[in-house]
Amino acid sequence: MTVSDRWLLPDGVEDILPPLAGQIESLRRDIMDTCQRWGYQLVIPPLIEYLESLFTGTGHDLALQTFKLTDQLTGRMMGVRADMTPQAARIDAHTLHQEGITRLCYAGHVLHARPQHMLTGRTPIQAGCELFGSASEDADLEVIRLMLETLRVAGISDVHLDLAHVAIYQSLIEAAQFSDETEAAIFDAMARKSIPELDQLLGNCPPESPGALLRVLARVSGGRDALGKAREALAGAPANVIRALDQLQRVADHLLETHPDLNLGFDFCELRGYNYHTGLVFAAYVQGHGDAVGKGGRYDAIGQDFGRARPATGFSLDVRALVGLGQRAGRVRSAIWAPADADPALDSTVAGLRMTETVVRALPEDVSVNPAERGCDRILVKRDGQWVVEQLGAC
Amino acid sequence: MTVSDRWLLPDGVEDILPPLAGQIESLRRDIMDTCQRWGYQLVIPPLIEYLESLFTGTGHDLALQTFKLTDQLTGRMMGVRADMTPQAARIDAHTLHQEGITRLCYAGHVLHARPQHMLTGRTPIQAGCELFGSASEDADLEVIRLMLETLRVAGISDVHLDLAHVAIYQSLIEAAQFSDETEAAIFDAMARKSIPELDQLLGNCPPESPGALLRVLARVSGGRDALGKAREALAGAPANVIRALDQLQRVADHLLETHPDLNLGFDFCELRGYNYHTGLVFAAYVQGHGDAVGKGGRYDAIGQDFGRARPATGFSLDVRALVGLGQRAGRVRSAIWAPADADPALDSTVAGLRMTETVVRALPEDVSVNPAERGCDRILVKRDGQWVVEQLGAC
Repeated sequence: MTVSDRWLLPDGVEDILPPLAGQIESLRRDIMDTCQRWGYQLVIPPLIEYLESLFTGTGHDLALQTFKLTDQLTGRMMGVRADMTPQAARIDAHTLHQEGITRLCYAGHVLHARPQHMLTGRTPIQAGCELFGSASEDADLEVIRLMLETLRVAGISDVHLDLAHVAIYQSLIEAAQFSDETEAAIFDAMARKSIPELDQLLGNCPPESPGALLRVLARVSGGRDALGKAREALAGAPANVIRALDQLQRVADHLLETHPDLNLGFDFCELRGYNYHTGLVFAAYVQGHGDAVGKGGRYDAIGQDFGRARPATGFSLDVRALVGLGQRAGRVRSAIWAPADADPALDSTVAGLRMTETVVRALPEDVSVNPAERGCDRILVKRDGQWVVEQLGAC
Repeated sequence: MTVSDRWLLPDGVEDILPPLAGQIESLRRDIMDTCQRWGYQLVIPPLIEYLESLFTGTGHDLALQTFKLTDQLTGRMMGVRADMTPQAARIDAHTLHQEGITRLCYAGHVLHARPQHMLTGRTPIQAGCELFGSASEDADLEVIRLMLETLRVAGISDVHLDLAHVAIYQSLIEAAQFSDETEAAIFDAMARKSIPELDQLLGNCPPESPGALLRVLARVSGGRDALGKAREALAGAPANVIRALDQLQRVADHLLETHPDLNLGFDFCELRGYNYHTGLVFAAYVQGHGDAVGKGGRYDAIGQDFGRARPATGFSLDVRALVGLGQRAGRVRSAIWAPADADPALDSTVAGLRMTETVVRALPEDVSVNPAERGCDRILVKRDGQWVVEQLGAC
């Protein structure tokens, strides 16, 4: 590597510079503060863990996404976290081990071996909330409402929220008893909403069979009326499919009570990214941005793998990606320039101002610098033996 | 791995739980805000980089400390950052590439392949400031004063500050022209302040020779008067040793002008951890804690490796370790309990309160819960059709 390309960063890895870094930090704080005002307590899970605990209860996707490294102390394989939700579940199940409801929130870098989204690359800044110990729909509603509130804090007003329930697809595909190969092909075609492929794969299934119902399901995903159509088309489906549809109906109704203008839809095809989910799931989208800006749902099975079965639901989002959408007003930076002067009175004036203001002190190299180029809008000037702050240009 | 040990974390890796996580977050914010009020702008360097850029300008120590991983996209070796200072230097030299003075600050997790300190384990939370473009002693003074200010913000009042200059040891050891083996043995004995070993290694050096001066140097490290003793003992040393001693004298004098009560000393033996440093270095200690709580100094050579020679100085500290010292007053957590009630008026009352307060909503599973156990000191109660906040126990 020569000097000139030594600074090249790997694909999907970036330096975040001012002022973007400050905007990300500011949103990160506001999101964490919002979560904490809803009663979620901050935890800081570790960057690395043994692979076994990182992958517990999760699917194959997360294993592919995780950077592996060898622990020099034990020779065991560790991974850099690719998702903090399983870490929060481990903390709830084992480290905290509280009775009753536990609400946790977190924010931090995660690493992906391959870029998941164009906007975030391989080092997203994940923030999220997880609610453990409640199987109630009130819990599902709380995390959805909190996600909508954090998106509002991020300046994103026009959100489209998709609701779904992984039990619907899972019950039908299990009942259909396809070969693993066919099942994988159906999953893939569903996720890509490829009606022609699904017609080919499922066209021979007898009417009202689970396979035929799956084919119908792919056609009714979409807007708010999709749920009604799904209920009609799946009237003859297994009982837990009906229960899932009923639950979606109730949660949607309650959501519209507090968010009457919410742009709500149902998507029974979007199955990717719900690795460890077991029940009601949701994802928020904004116009012109293909990837979800926030997503989550119920995952009642992970805790069991850590030795403690606990109902769980939560959401997470990428702070870096949210700031990238640019819908949040940035703060105007304002600072005071202090000249290079050895007067001890200047030291104490600067120290006093720095309680609340930004003060940039000139260094000997700064002789010909225009303070405005350093982001300063005011300057310290000595008038009648006193250091006073004046608008730049007024002196 | 069985269920019972799946949750075991690697040595030196920990879950940070409430309330500690909140205290760390709070101190991290206060430190970053302090640095920004001094004119340092936040950057967010990436968690991973190619090994070549991570190690640029740094010593062997950092290479041993760095977790390596393979980039699946290119097959090249990457590392998880073990230190953010070289990253900031790369950002200054290449990514930002500004003329004149650049001030940067950062905070984030770093990973160490082996634990460096007992208190921090292998996943310290590094925060720091770097000042590029000034070779002046004013710049050295600014970063030392800012480090002292961040330690004050961290609640640490009784700091001992050690000043040193890597040119002193380096000039003497180069002039002595020992074998690599002897040089390594001397370095090791100096770092451990082992006078008997140094006597054995250097006892045969003729008086006034560089070797003899090194032997004397080891005896004069310590308190504020050590500098005077060193100046006396090293009167015949090479010119750049004398220049370094003069610089230490001036910087110490200026520091005492603004910090007259500072517990200041000089340590010419402490050479470990100054991997890439080239000039004046410093470290802050507190009573009863062996490791430095903050350290830094001048490193004028790193930028050159990134294609742009820039004078540089800065400091960093471990936010996790600072909170672990427990000298900072924690905030008292206060929250309001909202009962499980479907009244829409409760929803709007809670939403209003959450603008400024923490409100925990009861879920169906919470029937027999005492709100005090959930950290609540107040409760929402319906009085005459209105939801009002009352002290817990008053209802």
